Amino acid sequence: MSRAPGISGEAFLDLAAESVPFVAALGCRIERFEAGALTIRLPYADRLLRPGGTVCGPALMALADIALWGLVMSVLGRIELAVTTDLSFHFLRRPAPVDVLADARLLKLGSRLAVGEVTMRSDGDPHPICHAIGTYALPRDTAGGAAGTPAPGRPGVDRTGRSA
Amino acid sequence: MSRAPGISGEAFLDLAAESVPFVAALGCRIERFEAGALTIRLPYADRLLRPGGTVCGPALMALADIALWGLVMSVLGRIELAVTTDLSFHFLRRPAPVDVLADARLLKLGSRLAVGEVTMRSDGDPHPICHAIGTYALPRDTAGGAAGTPAPGRPGVDRTGRSA
Amino acid sequence: MSRAPGISGEAFLDLAAESVPFVAALGCRIERFEAGALTIRLPYADRLLRPGGTVCGPALMALADIALWGLVMSVLGRIELAVTTDLSFHFLRRPAPVDVLADARLLKLGSRLAVGEVTMRSDGDPHPICHAIGTYALPRDTAGGAAGTPAPGRPGVDRTGRSA
Amino acid sequence: MSRAPGISGEAFLDLAAESVPFVAALGCRIERFEAGALTIRLPYADRLLRPGGTVCGPALMALADIALWGLVMSVLGRIELAVTTDLSFHFLRRPAPVDVLADARLLKLGSRLAVGEVTMRSDGDPHPICHAIGTYALPRDTAGGAAGTPAPGRPGVDRTGRSA
Repeated sequence: MSRAPGISGEAFLDLAAESVPFVAALGCRIERFEAGALTIRLPYADRLLRPGGTVCGPALMALADIALWGLVMSVLGRIELAVTTDLSFHFLRRPAPVDVLADARLLKLGSRLAVGEVTMRSDGDPHPICHAIGTYALPRDTAGGAAGTPAPGRPGVDRTGRSA
Repeated sequence: MSRAPGISGEAFLDLAAESVPFVAALGCRIERFEAGALTIRLPYADRLLRPGGTVCGPALMALADIALWGLVMSVLGRIELAVTTDLSFHFLRRPAPVDVLADARLLKLGSRLAVGEVTMRSDGDPHPICHAIGTYALPRDTAGGAAGTPAPGRPGVDRTGRSA
Repeated sequence: MSRAPGISGEAFLDLAAESVPFVAALGCRIERFEAGALTIRLPYADRLLRPGGTVCGPALMALADIALWGLVMSVLGRIELAVTTDLSFHFLRRPAPVDVLADARLLKLGSRLAVGEVTMRSDGDPHPICHAIGTYALPRDTAGGAAGTPAPGRPGVDRTGRSA
Repeated sequence: MSRAPGISGEAFLDLAAESVPFVAALGCRIERFEAGALTIRLPYADRLLRPGGTVCGPALMALADIALWGLVMSVLGRIELAVTTDLSFHFLRRPAPVDVLADARLLKLGSRLAVGEVTMRSDGDPHPICHAIGTYALPRDTAGGAAGTPAPGRPGVDRTGRSA
């Protein structure tokens, strides 16, 4: 996949942290930011722990939500109004008390909906600790004001949306 | 439903806040705490907002996770080791910039798994803003060491689990 | 809720059975068909069983999908192009070898998306056996060609969609 | 991954078709059957169509359910009592009127729960048409009667379950 158009990973994180203080508190960092594929690091912090010395579920869920927002921006550029419509999590293994890495990729980019998948792992261990999949509703004027008329040649994602 | 056995709503919240600082930061309050049914209030706070002046998704997701943990404790008493295995959200309406109320109820309590549902609304408006449903894996020695042999007379929940 | 506008429950089922033979094979019957709320009966049949003498999961999933389609039609009238975008199931109890009743209700009807919930139970037992929640993407010209401009006075559902 | 222990793909399909007539009606075929990873083909048939000339959702959901059951058997051998506890679908693109291929892989195999992911595509097109993820509750005596004590050397899956 090619470099993301219109917004850099740092610009995305700045926007997210500035807009949503709850997100800023996580202190995420971008490891990779391509059009339709990215990796975000959630630094380990004592305040994110839960009983058992493991990163708590709400921190992982916030991380997935940020990653999905980033996925949409990585392809469409700065969009403040995109909203999550559904988000499903499966918690697979106990996270280690270390940084969490979230790998996200776009599964679909339609004119009205985008679907992305996030797989999280503890730094240094390839096994997934959490899987998330969710849908974003895109603003009507996405893609240059022509929702329903996908721009040609957008890299790395297929726009043959099934439905919306 | 009757009063929850073994743990009060306040004791539950204290335990949750003490164990998980990330959760403590939300400042939730218990409005109702019965065996298998409860209501938790998430007080409005500027730091929970997202663009558009609405309560951000991660705060709602954290609220649902707390509510599900509370549901399990409302029936089984203090359990620190229960863990969420899956959690699915549908975001239905833009939350107003006011407190959020989460009504949660247990749909199933088996010997190994519990399933609960959470419906969230903005204070003063009956329409749902978010729906969550998820599963908790219960520790093996839940229900007095007799998993699979439901205790008689447990109020308000059916223990005829389908599977687990 | 009032009677569904524009289409009757029987007309809906005929349309569904005629359009989708796989669905016709289930032989569903309408028990209630109001705007935004309905009940569908899946008659017991040996061919729907799975090991253990219980109704198989795929039959329950097909039933939920039909119910969601019916929900949309119960409010918007005949719509052939609506498509499910996501659908999440929790299987709660082993179904008895009897008819299954699916109670469905609309949680949201926006200009672009509808979200509905389905709770299934074995006939004669009030405990839920399966919970489903899912989203439908509505055709662009829904609601009289004015997507985004909800028709006034539509009974039984709130149209203040959050997003889409 | 290595060959599945204890059961072949054909034996699995025979068992599934024999046990669940509803599944037999789909006429699925095994393309690949390894421990923790498999591919199942759903042959195109007019009776599976829905309006628009595309394979209907219930057929895709049944296919995912079969694939998850197969995943569990591919690792643990013949298990009749495993049951799905949750299953979430995202429908991504309109299926073409051709065979559907479902690629499934195990994300987690714990002592009590298994989680698998299924990605479906139309034959001849690499883009995903449907994504499913779900959980199976395993019988208590799985893995030789020693739930919680993973058998050594099981190929292709990590058994360090987080929770159950």
